[in-house]
Amino acid sequence: MSSLRLRRGIATVSLSGLLADKLTAAAAAGFDGVEIFDNDLIASPLSPAEVAKRCADLGLSVDLFQPVRDVEGVSPRAFATAERRFRAKLAVAAGLGARVVLVCSNVQADAVDDPDLSAAQLARLGDLAAEHDIAIAYEALAWGRHVDRVGRAWDIVQLADHSHVTLAVDTFHMLSRGDGAEALDGVPGGRIGFLQVADAPVLDMNVLEWSRHHRSFPGQGTMDVAAVVEKVVSAGYDGPLSLEVFSDVVREAPAADTARDAIRSLAYLEDEVARRLPDAEPVAPATPRRLDGAFVELSSSASLEDLLGRLGFSIAGWHRHKPVVWWRNGGANVLVNQAARTPALGLRASPATDVARRAAQLGWSSVTVDRAADDTPLPGITSPVGIPVFVSGEGSDDWRSDFAEGPQSPGPSDGWAGIDHVGMGVPEGRLNEEVSFLHALLGLQASPLEEFVDPHGRVRSRAFEPCEGDLRLVVNVLDTTDARREARADGINQIAFACHDLVREVRRLRANGVPLIAVPDNYYDDLAARFDLTPDRVTELRELGILYDRVGDGELLQAFTPVLGQGFYLELLERRHGYRGYGAANAHVRLAAQHL
Amino acid sequence: MSSLRLRRGIATVSLSGLLADKLTAAAAAGFDGVEIFDNDLIASPLSPAEVAKRCADLGLSVDLFQPVRDVEGVSPRAFATAERRFRAKLAVAAGLGARVVLVCSNVQADAVDDPDLSAAQLARLGDLAAEHDIAIAYEALAWGRHVDRVGRAWDIVQLADHSHVTLAVDTFHMLSRGDGAEALDGVPGGRIGFLQVADAPVLDMNVLEWSRHHRSFPGQGTMDVAAVVEKVVSAGYDGPLSLEVFSDVVREAPAADTARDAIRSLAYLEDEVARRLPDAEPVAPATPRRLDGAFVELSSSASLEDLLGRLGFSIAGWHRHKPVVWWRNGGANVLVNQAARTPALGLRASPATDVARRAAQLGWSSVTVDRAADDTPLPGITSPVGIPVFVSGEGSDDWRSDFAEGPQSPGPSDGWAGIDHVGMGVPEGRLNEEVSFLHALLGLQASPLEEFVDPHGRVRSRAFEPCEGDLRLVVNVLDTTDARREARADGINQIAFACHDLVREVRRLRANGVPLIAVPDNYYDDLAARFDLTPDRVTELRELGILYDRVGDGELLQAFTPVLGQGFYLELLERRHGYRGYGAANAHVRLAAQHL
Repeated sequence: MSSLRLRRGIATVSLSGLLADKLTAAAAAGFDGVEIFDNDLIASPLSPAEVAKRCADLGLSVDLFQPVRDVEGVSPRAFATAERRFRAKLAVAAGLGARVVLVCSNVQADAVDDPDLSAAQLARLGDLAAEHDIAIAYEALAWGRHVDRVGRAWDIVQLADHSHVTLAVDTFHMLSRGDGAEALDGVPGGRIGFLQVADAPVLDMNVLEWSRHHRSFPGQGTMDVAAVVEKVVSAGYDGPLSLEVFSDVVREAPAADTARDAIRSLAYLEDEVARRLPDAEPVAPATPRRLDGAFVELSSSASLEDLLGRLGFSIAGWHRHKPVVWWRNGGANVLVNQAARTPALGLRASPATDVARRAAQLGWSSVTVDRAADDTPLPGITSPVGIPVFVSGEGSDDWRSDFAEGPQSPGPSDGWAGIDHVGMGVPEGRLNEEVSFLHALLGLQASPLEEFVDPHGRVRSRAFEPCEGDLRLVVNVLDTTDARREARADGINQIAFACHDLVREVRRLRANGVPLIAVPDNYYDDLAARFDLTPDRVTELRELGILYDRVGDGELLQAFTPVLGQGFYLELLERRHGYRGYGAANAHVRLAAQHL
Repeated sequence: MSSLRLRRGIATVSLSGLLADKLTAAAAAGFDGVEIFDNDLIASPLSPAEVAKRCADLGLSVDLFQPVRDVEGVSPRAFATAERRFRAKLAVAAGLGARVVLVCSNVQADAVDDPDLSAAQLARLGDLAAEHDIAIAYEALAWGRHVDRVGRAWDIVQLADHSHVTLAVDTFHMLSRGDGAEALDGVPGGRIGFLQVADAPVLDMNVLEWSRHHRSFPGQGTMDVAAVVEKVVSAGYDGPLSLEVFSDVVREAPAADTARDAIRSLAYLEDEVARRLPDAEPVAPATPRRLDGAFVELSSSASLEDLLGRLGFSIAGWHRHKPVVWWRNGGANVLVNQAARTPALGLRASPATDVARRAAQLGWSSVTVDRAADDTPLPGITSPVGIPVFVSGEGSDDWRSDFAEGPQSPGPSDGWAGIDHVGMGVPEGRLNEEVSFLHALLGLQASPLEEFVDPHGRVRSRAFEPCEGDLRLVVNVLDTTDARREARADGINQIAFACHDLVREVRRLRANGVPLIAVPDNYYDDLAARFDLTPDRVTELRELGILYDRVGDGELLQAFTPVLGQGFYLELLERRHGYRGYGAANAHVRLAAQHL
């Protein structure tokens, strides 16, 4: 087995700043080469030769100059003008030292729908390019006037039949139009001049707007990018694997952050592709077969410890070396750490070290933790929004082995069932990165996006679950203006525990003085209208302030605290008969009640 | 002529906050009634009777309870459940004192496509509603499963043939599907139970997402809302004119701001409708027939006065009573005001008082200005982002009559041509309000949206021009993260002057030490590739740092300063052969150069 290692590239259009800043960021992140975007060059005080020099100094190759627009499929009398423009752009590309120029399909209203004409014009441009030893890579824009599918572009490249006229493959343009890897059947790798990769969420909107604003790095959307790359590589392509992503996010984010996110996504993509190829070695250990929740770690405070006691937690142990106390309520474990500044998450995977190695190979930052020589090695990775995520193993690697167990603690079989899910606030600008962390690194699968109305904005939520195991994470993007009363927007902002009998537990919590949100009477009137519940049942829920949902046979019962001082709230829930969701129908009521 | 005065209503879903806050905001803005959104009630601690009481105390009627979903077009065996749910919602509506309940067309995958079934079910629900003296208004959601056009809903209402089953008309649902007023041909006003109004920009996207995120108040989008309202009113409808607008903006904006914006839009809509009806009196004087630019007013500073001198401005006069100096360069007038805190704009309309009366009638705030008894009454209106806009008349109303003219000032026929356009930074959240100011109040027409890449984000621009006159305003939404070097995001951020010979003027400005942005050499290489310019011409532009554009025969030459201390930059331009745009092709180069 050989490792699959294509040259890693990124388009300058995918990074913010001025051209010189973009190059610096790409080099710092470890890219091998760049695509120079014409508008970036035009707006730069650096000449093409100076850009070439800068790239060489930074160890970057100039893999592509892009794009040249509307130079084929033009009426014969307008072709002289197109040719003049193409010659000028060839001179620029040559100055940059680029060996490939991207020509994209004509988008003008007066473009001519004639493959033979386009092919003849491309062949003529190919002659001009050949003089500079430059190849044309011809791309079907998804919104091209006539050439808008990769198959049509390939037809034209074949008709052109020119050594310096090749096909450009762009995963977004293909997949957004419904063309999968099979659209490249029979295309030899040697005739593919360039491979651009981008992912995106599936959106029902104008494809140009979709492309401009919502592309993402591989692993962050829902497109099968790896299948196209596998096909291209299998066909013998050995040029760069180059990211071309535009979005409102990358236009605003610091270039260094984007470049780091970008190169992690390429490492992930290579790993994905290698796993599909018969004779290539994966880049990193596979995602964990199974992931379970282990604990949450919170900052110590008197009010937190008081609340844990009222909730039914008791001290299960003390860390042998650090000021960390382990609280337990049945299967639910909470670590209270005097040194923790932000809530952290503990997962369980086996072996834990594989997760840590995968993180390192894909370029994720590990958490720096003070650790005594005989402490269990508990690898930690920091998520993009700054959540420390620790990975515990089984047996001798178990996180509990660092704790001296308390004598009077009830066993895990009593009390609550465990942590049901953990909510993470993620700012819009870091959402894609966080999705990479959850999906590309940990292998969690995303549920569809849900959107909830908040009294002062909206909350967009997406649940992530493993194929196997009980870990459930919910990413919440808070677009709200009333920060005062909200859960934190960048870090753990919800901890949901599961129990076996919510009615009994809520009675106990209320008796213990645990603060729970007041659920309006109107909610219960609506509940009675929506579901066929007995009046006694509704009365019980109403009296206890329990929220209810039902999907098919599954039932969910939920109770919530207000947002607590540390910026998170607690939920206690009971799932019955296989209810799988998170109570989406109740979210607006919970959000409003947390503002009362 | 009688004045058209429908009851003004707003849906609580159009306002942020909790239900009680929404009601307070609606009343404070002067609405007559509200639509109570079911989810707002469900999340409220106020019972229906308490809401009714609160509304009565605030002088608001409860015009509608909405929506009841998926109760028609259901399979006969599921109808009992729908009926039970409907009965519960009727009890709520009765508790609220609502006389109308909105039933929207079934969106479920298992909805039955059978108008007779839907009609029979609606008739049965109509019987139940009649017991409470409540009418059903049946609405075709634009994304209804089978009933998604107003014509289909009307067919079903006719089939139901029930006194308490009426048609709901919603301008968004109609116009988003391409149904104009003519879709209501033959519908008697008495059979229309409710009229909801919303506008929206035309967007090529999923209609449900469009509706949820991008509705706007009438006058802020591009839909012909007035035509539908005219049709409904002409047909004899005399119920409320009620705004139902959802958007990311209204979910986040303070309810009081939204309510004020909303009621202004209804006043504008009434005015528009009255002008189309043969026997109704307009609400306010018409928009000005002609609008010209008069002046900009800037805060006084030594560096500004130095710059004005270098630009070729000289003092043309002094205000008789206030510390305001009038600077002039030909037709371009700049007032430098020691007391001004933010740049202001002066327009010219005839008569100016009509604009002021229109502003007052439509609910806009006037600028408070210290004014001596013999000063020219110069009405001022504050735009939503806080730009003071003063309106000068002609002759004795002219703003210049307050100034003692300076002796040595050259006349307006020498020097620059005038103010070409003024750019206004507007935050996303206030964009719709600002559009109302420009379009609904002043009668300016919007050009299509243009989007420019900034090194640290993007700028979305839209020009507004009058039907007649030289006023040109450009609204810029800055989505950028590098505030340090940007023009101001909320107020006047660009002042563009026109001249007759830009080449000559730029030579002079450079000789006078006026700071102008450095335009990269690459830009001129690209210019030579794009346009058939002589090498001498390109050399001249390059040496002077002049940007160039051509559309058809029209040519534009532009030069820019960096962003100046007060948060705006200056442009000097020359339009040739009827060039009408603003140099969109050059914007990314200018934005990058302003970051160098």
